[in-house]
This record gives sequence, C-alpha cells and structure tokens, in this order.
Amino acid sequence: MADAAALDRADPLAHMRERFALPEGLVYLDGNSLGALPHATRDALARVVSEEWGTGLIRSWAAADWIGLARRTGEAIAPLIGAAEGTVVACDSTSINLSKALHCAAGLRPGRTRLIADADNFPTDVYIARSVADQLALELVLLPAGEVADAVDERTAAVTLSHVSYRSSAIYDLAGITRAAHAAGALAVWDLAHSAGALRCDVGALGADLAIGCGYKYLNGGPGAPAFLYCAAEHHEAAEQPLTGWFGHDHPFAFEQVYRPAAGIERFLTGTTPVLSMSALAASLEIFGDVTLDALRAKSVALGELFIELFDRTLAPRGFALATPRDSALRGSHVALTHADGHPIVRALGERGIVGDFRAPDLLRFGFAPLYNRFSEVQALVDAIAEVFDDGSFRDPRLAAPTRVT
Amino acid sequence: MADAAALDRADPLAHMRERFALPEGLVYLDGNSLGALPHATRDALARVVSEEWGTGLIRSWAAADWIGLARRTGEAIAPLIGAAEGTVVACDSTSINLSKALHCAAGLRPGRTRLIADADNFPTDVYIARSVADQLALELVLLPAGEVADAVDERTAAVTLSHVSYRSSAIYDLAGITRAAHAAGALAVWDLAHSAGALRCDVGALGADLAIGCGYKYLNGGPGAPAFLYCAAEHHEAAEQPLTGWFGHDHPFAFEQVYRPAAGIERFLTGTTPVLSMSALAASLEIFGDVTLDALRAKSVALGELFIELFDRTLAPRGFALATPRDSALRGSHVALTHADGHPIVRALGERGIVGDFRAPDLLRFGFAPLYNRFSEVQALVDAIAEVFDDGSFRDPRLAAPTRVT
Repeated sequence: MADAAALDRADPLAHMRERFALPEGLVYLDGNSLGALPHATRDALARVVSEEWGTGLIRSWAAADWIGLARRTGEAIAPLIGAAEGTVVACDSTSINLSKALHCAAGLRPGRTRLIADADNFPTDVYIARSVADQLALELVLLPAGEVADAVDERTAAVTLSHVSYRSSAIYDLAGITRAAHAAGALAVWDLAHSAGALRCDVGALGADLAIGCGYKYLNGGPGAPAFLYCAAEHHEAAEQPLTGWFGHDHPFAFEQVYRPAAGIERFLTGTTPVLSMSALAASLEIFGDVTLDALRAKSVALGELFIELFDRTLAPRGFALATPRDSALRGSHVALTHADGHPIVRALGERGIVGDFRAPDLLRFGFAPLYNRFSEVQALVDAIAEVFDDGSFRDPRLAAPTRVT
Repeated sequence: MADAAALDRADPLAHMRERFALPEGLVYLDGNSLGALPHATRDALARVVSEEWGTGLIRSWAAADWIGLARRTGEAIAPLIGAAEGTVVACDSTSINLSKALHCAAGLRPGRTRLIADADNFPTDVYIARSVADQLALELVLLPAGEVADAVDERTAAVTLSHVSYRSSAIYDLAGITRAAHAAGALAVWDLAHSAGALRCDVGALGADLAIGCGYKYLNGGPGAPAFLYCAAEHHEAAEQPLTGWFGHDHPFAFEQVYRPAAGIERFLTGTTPVLSMSALAASLEIFGDVTLDALRAKSVALGELFIELFDRTLAPRGFALATPRDSALRGSHVALTHADGHPIVRALGERGIVGDFRAPDLLRFGFAPLYNRFSEVQALVDAIAEVFDDGSFRDPRLAAPTRVT
C-alpha cells in the first residue's frame, strides 16, 4: 500500500516547491489551468516594472533588450517542447497563435480543401479552426482524435489536435497522426497547452510542422500569460500568416510602409511585445533550467499512479468513475473523474481548501504539477472526496448554485 | 516672452507629476511612445501578483473578477474617447484589434470592394490594412489623409486612418472624413493611438463606427500594454470578426463546441485576458478619474505653444524646421522638427538626460504628456538642442552609429 509521506520524502523534486508562493494549507490541484506563482517571478516582475519601465523608460527597448524578449522567451520554451533554436516565439494568446498556425499551414498546402480537427479539443481550438476554414473556404472535418490518422488524404491541408486532452488527460498519438499526415502530404499542427512543461513534446523529432501552447498552465507564466508558437525551420521561408503587425517585420524600427516578413520565426509576431506579462513568463521559465523533463515526467506519472491506486480503493466503491487512462504512458499530468454530483463535490472540496475544477456535465479534474505538488496532497484529495461524499456536505444547497468559476 | 517657471507655478495639473515614478533629473519627452510609470500602478500590479495570482490562484477568475477585467478596463477607457458604456473592450495589440475592426467593417458592408487607408499612417496600420484587403479580395487604396474624404464612394466598405499623425502630430479631420464615409454608405475606423488620453476623440458624437487605440502611450499602461477596441452599439448585433476565441463566446465557461458570439462588445475578445498587463493598464487609467480632458488638453496645447515660441526664437535660426502644425487646434500632444542631423542630435540629447525620439530620415519627435511634463522641461529641451548644435557635441562619431532604439 502506497505511503504518500514516504513518497514525498523520497521525491527528488520535493525542494522545488519552495520556489513557489503557495498559500499555507491550501492543496492546489489546478496547475493544469493556472500555474502557481514562483517567488522569483514576483521579484523579477517588480524589478522590470520599477527599473526597466520606471527608470529605463523607452530606452529599455534597447538597454533591456525588450526588442528581443519575445524571441528570448521562445528560446527558453524550445527545449521544453523539443524544438530547435530559432523555431519558437512567445506572443499573443493560444487562440490567436492557432489562427496564425492554421492560416500558415493552409497557405503551405495551396489547392487542398480540408482541415481536420479533433472534435473534442478545447473549444477555442474548434472555434478558431472553424473560423480559419470559413475564411479560406476550406471544409472543416471534426473527428474524434483516434480517427484523424485514417481520415487524412490528399484533400487535407492540415490536421490539428491537442497533445493531451483537456478533459480526459489522454495523450494522443501525435507521432502516428503526424506520420499519417505527412504520408498524405498534409501538415500537422499541435496544441501543447496541456503538455508543455509537464511531459516531452518532441516537436522536432516527431516532425510537427507547427505547434502552439499556453504560458499560464504548467509553465507558470501567470494568468493570461503570453502563449507560444513553434514553426519548423524548413517552413520559415514560405510561412505566411495574416496578422502582419510591425513586430513581424524584418526591420520594425525602420518604419517601412511595405511589409517584409522577418526571415525567421519572428514573422509570426504581430504587435508590440507585452513586456510586463512576457517578463513574468520569462522569469517563470528559468525554473525549468534546474530540473530535467525526465524527472518532471517521472514525478507526474508517480503522482497519477498514486491517485489511481487510491481511487481504486476509496472512490470506485463510492460510485466515482475514472475518466483518465490507467496506462501512465497514455496519461498527461492531470486526472479526471466523473460523478453526477461532480459540481457540488468540487465546490465542497474548495471549501476545505482543496482546489480542483469541474467541467460540465460531470467531470472533476485535478492537476498534478510535478514542480510543486506533493504525494501527500494526492492522499489529502482522495480522503477529502470520500469525506464530503460520506458526510453529505456536498449536498449543501449553496454548493449547487451555478458558478462562473473555471 | 514666455516664462517657463511661471507657467509651471500656474499649472493646475502640476501636482499630477507626483503620481509618476520619473527618474530624478531626467527630462522625459517620449510619453507619446511609452508613458511613464505611475506609482499606483507599480503597487497595484504587485498586489495582483502576490494576492490575486499567488494566493487567490484560479479562484481569482471569480473572486477578483478577472472574467470581467477586459470589459472593466474598456469601461475606464470609454469616457476618454467619448464612447458610451458597453462599447469599448481592452485586449490584444493595436495591430490585432485593427485587423478585427477592418474585418468587421468589411463584413458590415458586403459587396463593397474597397478599403481606403491613410498612406502615411503608422506602418503596422498599413500592413494590417493590406493583409485584410488581401484576405477579403478588396482593393486597398492608400491616400494622404487629406484626400480620403473626397475619394470615398459607393465602392468603399470602410476608411481607416489615425486621429493624430504619429510623425507630424497633425490632427486629421475625422469628423469630416466620417461624414463623407457615411454619406457614401461606408464605415469609418479610427486609430486613436496618438490621441487617447491626450485629447478629445468623441467617437460617439462624431459617429466613428469602430476605433482602436494603444494602452502604452498617453494611457501609461506599461510597455506593450493591451490595446483597446471600440465598436458603436448599433453594429454589435451584426458585428463579426474572425479571431473567434473562447473569451468572445457568449458563455466561455460553458465550454460549448459551437461558437456563439457574446451579445455585446465582448464579441471582439479572443483569448484569455492577460491579467497581469491588463491590471497594470487598469490601475494607470484610474489617474484619469482625477483630471478632466479639458484640463489635459489645455496643458498639452500650452506646452506645444511654448515649444513653438521657443523654436521660433532659438531653433529656426539654427536651421531646424517645424514639422508640426502651428495651429494648436490641428496639433496633437507631441511636436516634431526636421533636421538633417536629427539622429545624432537626438542621441546627444539622450546623453544629457533629455529623452525624445527620432524617426528616419530626419524627424525629431518630442512628446508632451500633460499629466507629468513641465513647462521648464520644454525650455530645457530647446536650450539643450541649441547647445548640442552649437558646441558640435552631436558630431561625436559614436552618435552617428545606427541604433535599434525607437
């Protein structure tokens, strides 16, 4: 029988939790939605505000290299997703970056008439795929992720799907889907929102053509942090995207009236770099210099395995169902349960200082961020679910009211 | 003869400078490019980071109303541009917002075949207008601002231009251009980057259909602050824009797979609100609650008039030319000179702690931010220009080297 305290004592990443400003006594299991605040990020941002903005003012574009900040932040993300130097830039939101990536992919495959997208992807991905398809008069084919590889054919310009499902935490076979896409001459556009910073993505080795991802989940960049965009170097010269703002220009500060895209990945930039939020993300990324992806993944898997063991013993008998793959090789860094009373149960847990989240109609999600979550928190979670279920505290009518909380 | 010290003593806004963290001894005349740091913004952002993110974590979407932050920030901008409640939202960059606005305008005028844009507008505006025209197979007609009104006809979907020229500081006749556009059944899309926070814009009274603007110039939102977008209420129901991210959905947290745009101005939102940078902008906007636009404009005009008086006496005889309208009713809040040695002169001023900027090939720009600039700084500027010119210090070869500085 697993001993959470012993696992914590043996955890080689245990000391990393001290880097984060987690509130005393809170069990925070929603880092898959919003990562925790690193102390160093708070301090770095205060310095950027006071010194770079307050004192440096406009001179900081050169003196603090704000001009290179989007690229520099991208370079810090690159090793986390298996990307080569010069192929990642941080900017805008995941939605906007997906729009750029899909426009670019379609432009690289002129004459093809279809986009294929994961029907169960995070809604914003589906909305953007629909919008890009409508703008380009392409057919959007929405399919379950498992059916995408077989559906790719010579009509397909690109396929797009997430690496890890935001609901079930299932890891999709992006390697196989990308091979199938390439075999048919199509491109593969990956969304790494629920994997970057928690598991290997290998965009380079597995041949992703474009990828986007989120700065505020496992990368801990802060609420609404800039997103990122990857484009394989082989596509740079031909890559076009329609949000041709001045920061994507080859020489923004020449103020030319004709757009000439930057030679490299910077052609995916659009507006002025959001220096404050980008600096927070950049500071948070420094933490990843002190850990290995293998160590992070090993701990994430161990946290998930402990959860499943405790689930089998404690929650399955109470009518909860596991909505997450049991095979750790197929599971991302969060776990999901289903229960008809999921919504009031998640709220009752919140009242006890255990933060997870709920996705309609019946999904309870709990994220295990290997940088700061503990095995004892997994134990506390399962114990608390059993408790609020057994003592009926989730039946409090206040908890049944709809909330706007994520 | 103007007495700068006396003007400072009589300045009813003089006390506002104390709200800003300007470095001792620096004469900062680039607030038209990057506004100064308000002390309150530094403090508010530190609180948002530590408390809302660090302690509140994901719960702050509801508890700190991060969900409403983009709308709330827009509501704080609305009175500064003469917009009604519920017609402004803060989000993304000016480039991205202009793309949304032009797509929207074209969509509201189906069948029309032209966009007309100011040929001398800030480059990103021209790039984006070109890109939108290309995407929608419209003809882009680039004209000097003074020729736009006469060029509008029944082929024109929309005209777009800036309120104030980023180079000359000329105020364009948006009222007249908008009347001409409407008379031909076209829409008017304004860029308020160089006017919002410094002079009246009156989008409502003058009938702008859409407008966009910048958060980091006179609004002091911080480097790369979120931009804003205005859309007249009459267009909301029919307004469509292609960056259909989840935050523009009528009910983002319902996670529906089909996009239903929000009923109001929120349909122009795309991705997750960048909470850190948006909170900085929101905090900076609070300053405008303690001043009137009339007082700001009066001081801005007076600073410009002092500059022109000193220019006539001191700089014209030295071969500088005024590149800015003399009529204050036609001049925004910065002034511009031309001189063949403009680049090294601006750099020599920088070495003396006087910060303006240079725009190729020969334009020297100095912004007068009425919230914090002093009349004595205008005097110091003109004296210093004369000095570096007379003593030849601008001929230092180090200053001739190209820089990447804005």
